[in-house]
Amino acid sequence: MNRNDTPARIAHVFSGTFVHSTPRAAVEILQNCVLGVDDKGKIAFIEKHQDVVSLSEIWGFETSDIRQLGQYEFLMPGMVDTHIHASQYSYAGTALDLPLLEWLNTYTFPVEAKYKDLDFANDVYTKVVRRTLKNGTTTACYFATIHTDASLLLGELADRFGQRALVGKVCMDYNSYPNVKPVVTPRFAPSCSSSLLSELGEIANNNKLHVQSHISENKEEVELVKTLFPGCKSYTDVYLKHNLLTDRTVMAHGCHLTDEELEIFRETGSAVSHCPNSNISICSGMLNVRNVLNHNVKLGLGTDVAGGYSPSMLDAMRRTLDTSKALTIQDPQHKTLSFEEVFRLATLGGSEALSLDDQIGNFVVGKDFDALRVNVCVPDGPIDLFPGEGPKVRQSSYWSFLPSY
Amino acid sequence: MNRNDTPARIAHVFSGTFVHSTPRAAVEILQNCVLGVDDKGKIAFIEKHQDVVSLSEIWGFETSDIRQLGQYEFLMPGMVDTHIHASQYSYAGTALDLPLLEWLNTYTFPVEAKYKDLDFANDVYTKVVRRTLKNGTTTACYFATIHTDASLLLGELADRFGQRALVGKVCMDYNSYPNVKPVVTPRFAPSCSSSLLSELGEIANNNKLHVQSHISENKEEVELVKTLFPGCKSYTDVYLKHNLLTDRTVMAHGCHLTDEELEIFRETGSAVSHCPNSNISICSGMLNVRNVLNHNVKLGLGTDVAGGYSPSMLDAMRRTLDTSKALTIQDPQHKTLSFEEVFRLATLGGSEALSLDDQIGNFVVGKDFDALRVNVCVPDGPIDLFPGEGPKVRQSSYWSFLPSY
Ligand SMILES: [Zn+2]
Ligand SMILES: [Zn+2]
Repeated sequence: MNRNDTPARIAHVFSGTFVHSTPRAAVEILQNCVLGVDDKGKIAFIEKHQDVVSLSEIWGFETSDIRQLGQYEFLMPGMVDTHIHASQYSYAGTALDLPLLEWLNTYTFPVEAKYKDLDFANDVYTKVVRRTLKNGTTTACYFATIHTDASLLLGELADRFGQRALVGKVCMDYNSYPNVKPVVTPRFAPSCSSSLLSELGEIANNNKLHVQSHISENKEEVELVKTLFPGCKSYTDVYLKHNLLTDRTVMAHGCHLTDEELEIFRETGSAVSHCPNSNISICSGMLNVRNVLNHNVKLGLGTDVAGGYSPSMLDAMRRTLDTSKALTIQDPQHKTLSFEEVFRLATLGGSEALSLDDQIGNFVVGKDFDALRVNVCVPDGPIDLFPGEGPKVRQSSYWSFLPSY
Repeated sequence: MNRNDTPARIAHVFSGTFVHSTPRAAVEILQNCVLGVDDKGKIAFIEKHQDVVSLSEIWGFETSDIRQLGQYEFLMPGMVDTHIHASQYSYAGTALDLPLLEWLNTYTFPVEAKYKDLDFANDVYTKVVRRTLKNGTTTACYFATIHTDASLLLGELADRFGQRALVGKVCMDYNSYPNVKPVVTPRFAPSCSSSLLSELGEIANNNKLHVQSHISENKEEVELVKTLFPGCKSYTDVYLKHNLLTDRTVMAHGCHLTDEELEIFRETGSAVSHCPNSNISICSGMLNVRNVLNHNVKLGLGTDVAGGYSPSMLDAMRRTLDTSKALTIQDPQHKTLSFEEVFRLATLGGSEALSLDDQIGNFVVGKDFDALRVNVCVPDGPIDLFPGEGPKVRQSSYWSFLPSY
């Protein structure tokens, strides 16, 4: 076990079942374990319950203070939404009848213009932060709009409700919230000049900031970028040339990236945010996640509200599996993603994609304690249990039952 | 307006917004209307609210007895699940890692054998009926198992909880529940001998019974049927030759039906039950619903629990749209289904597929009053409304927000 000579004070101890992912195991189920959280919110230990007496002596807590999870409960890491347009939440579930470029002009740009009104922004941003938290998203990488005040407000709201967040439009001047950070956010190559992209690349590199944008979402867009940047070899090359591909970069979609482009992602340490609901809903394409993973490119999942109609990461998980199965229907040789792999993508994978895996993503000593408490057996809940069935039976797939709120 | 000279007594009158489908309009939104239900549960009238005083005189009800729907409420027809294996509900959400024929042998047959135990059957069947009702399925076409007692019990439970049901295994001897009927249910061609199929065809035709089975779910199965029935031109021809294709027949899946086979469906008046969650989850194929509709073949939606992991028809609707959009991604010429068309398939289309459209499916005078009351604005509910937005804004797509329970 890891501990310092002067152990931190233990603030919480949980006992029961813990479900998380590791680089080796897509899903690891730790039963009869105890997890201690120190007074800075870090995981101090996670050990077998049988050692609880010696743990209590070493760490100085009372065994009577342990919070025992119920028979049908477990803790899992908070989910990471690697790509969500907070500003589009006001029309989530509608307006999914046009392809990307028309969709942007017809529905998206007019709504985004409304965010100069801070009251409007406050209403929508409050709702999107509360709704995603309710759905288990403890970390979100948000696109806001070009309005600085409204974007600052989004960061403030995330902080107030306790959500870890990356927020772009570029908001360089607020570092006051420990769990909210700015992201350099060129919308996507077609809407940015080469000089703007270069400036943003410089800002990101000089300040070691996160970068987020869109890439290769649909074929029309890929063709458009070719026309707009004739000097670049590929869509990826556009961002590469402008120094926007770093190990703190996450690019949404990537449905039509070539293997050569994925190699550049791997080399630069840039990540892909897979947004399957959106990709299907506006008919953009189907990302071959298996191929991305085979290239050792970091990958997380995103809801991409409102191209995706659901603000729930559980939906993103289900749609990730659907897309993988649709690819298998097209090509029986395609190696379908498993339930377990998708769970990992929504948690550990997301933390890697946002370069936050030193802080969150799974239950590892030294990381922040960032967890969801799940009870599969609540009165009037969404899951019917059957005789002899505990949480273990469905742990690998319990999330197909959990409702989106 | 339609009424007899001696009008029936009016038992309920609702006033507000009604959303349903007609053969002409995929979605028709009737605002400021009143709907009267007679003491036999039939729709007696549906008229503009402005005529309410004369309606009350004609039909003899007090306007003070009218039930006013709230500002954010509407009535829609109950949803029709045209294909669901009640017996597989106990493992819904698990065991989706094998293709059809292996899936049947590994997971399905062992579980189905347990239904000789009536206590087990009672537990699962109670849960599946209550759960589907909670999700808005007022009519279900159930597969049970080969056990007669358990199948009778399923019919009894559906009746007790107020769900209209077709129940097979073949249960010829209970006509005591007005809203529960037996269905002649050959599992699928590969598990039935030619003589069994002929007998079942004869029983169905002699007694004017409904028929349900599976067809062309995946390619391996289609090949198997070719080998097993070398004298038949196609999978469809197998059922045709055994007199199982009638205008009371519903066949699940049909992913790989040819245009020639669809012609036989149209000629015989047989229907297809589209089960998109199942088809994706066990990688069976993607039905081109547009093509089926273009052939004027009746089509409803099914959850196909447990090949489909969700018992909710709202999920079946979402997955129907996903599948259609996936087909558009593959072929941009494909004419994607609209939200409205999918709504119709889940209600009116389902009633047609089960040949119950003389009784249910939409709000038409003389049909049974079979309705769901939907409120898009409940405290702590799944939908965030935005300023100026009433139910009308999202009526065409509100169901993408509704939770599955
Ligand atoms: Zn986006
Ligand atoms: Zn089936």
